Amino acid sequence: MHGEQMAEEFPTVSLTTDALEAVRLLASHRLPGLIVVDDKGRPHSVLPASQVVRFLVPSYVQDDPSLARVIDEPLADQVASKLTGLTVRQLLPTEPAELPVVNFDDTVVEVAALMARLRCPLVAVVKDQEIIGAITASRLLELVTSAR
Amino acid sequence: MHGEQMAEEFPTVSLTTDALEAVRLLASHRLPGLIVVDDKGRPHSVLPASQVVRFLVPSYVQDDPSLARVIDEPLADQVASKLTGLTVRQLLPTEPAELPVVNFDDTVVEVAALMARLRCPLVAVVKDQEIIGAITASRLLELVTSAR
Repeated sequence: MHGEQMAEEFPTVSLTTDALEAVRLLASHRLPGLIVVDDKGRPHSVLPASQVVRFLVPSYVQDDPSLARVIDEPLADQVASKLTGLTVRQLLPTEPAELPVVNFDDTVVEVAALMARLRCPLVAVVKDQEIIGAITASRLLELVTSAR
Repeated sequence: MHGEQMAEEFPTVSLTTDALEAVRLLASHRLPGLIVVDDKGRPHSVLPASQVVRFLVPSYVQDDPSLARVIDEPLADQVASKLTGLTVRQLLPTEPAELPVVNFDDTVVEVAALMARLRCPLVAVVKDQEIIGAITASRLLELVTSAR
């Protein structure tokens, strides 16, 4: 089996996708993160859901977590206004996590070895420089435990 | 809204759960990881799917990733035998990732602040020292984007 057969569809966004739209995509599909592609459809980075949460937490709470206890649930109220007019590019951390990439003809062992080395739960599968899908760690485990 | 209302059911395993059973749970539910509890049901750690993948990759491939290309797909064949007789305890890394915990009465902002600080995609919700569920980053984003 090769990367192409292991890959599954995975939602991608571009650097210029509307931030609120991207967050709704994360939320509605309950994804741990989104794959971000550049304007040519090539892999750019990963936007983890936890990074978006980080973006939404007021900076004074990030600086002093004890303030979280005393403020009165302003998060939901502020989310829409905080994200309006922003793009995915602005949600990404300054040094965004690089998206690990495997080739469409890589073997199960190659994919597993990359995931293991980088301790990453998600790799993109690329053919002719374009993303054709993604493989999660749990998908890989499904393949190797159901193959027998 | 508080942790108790935000929490969702999340599969847990104990340190003595059969390793193959735990891996099948990860795979069949497509989970990014499992919550590991001790024998009193208290949070112990997280077993990430990528850690299990790491466990399955032969050590000579971990040492020299270029070998992954030349070996002939032994992974699926070896999984069952490699996991037989082992427990979750033996799958965990030597220093397992601590499971972040929130209280059942913590607010959305407190949960978000913890996730943001630890950059973790999953927290356990605890009441009377027992886990009553978990909150993922995408669940939290769902709550704060659909609340309006």
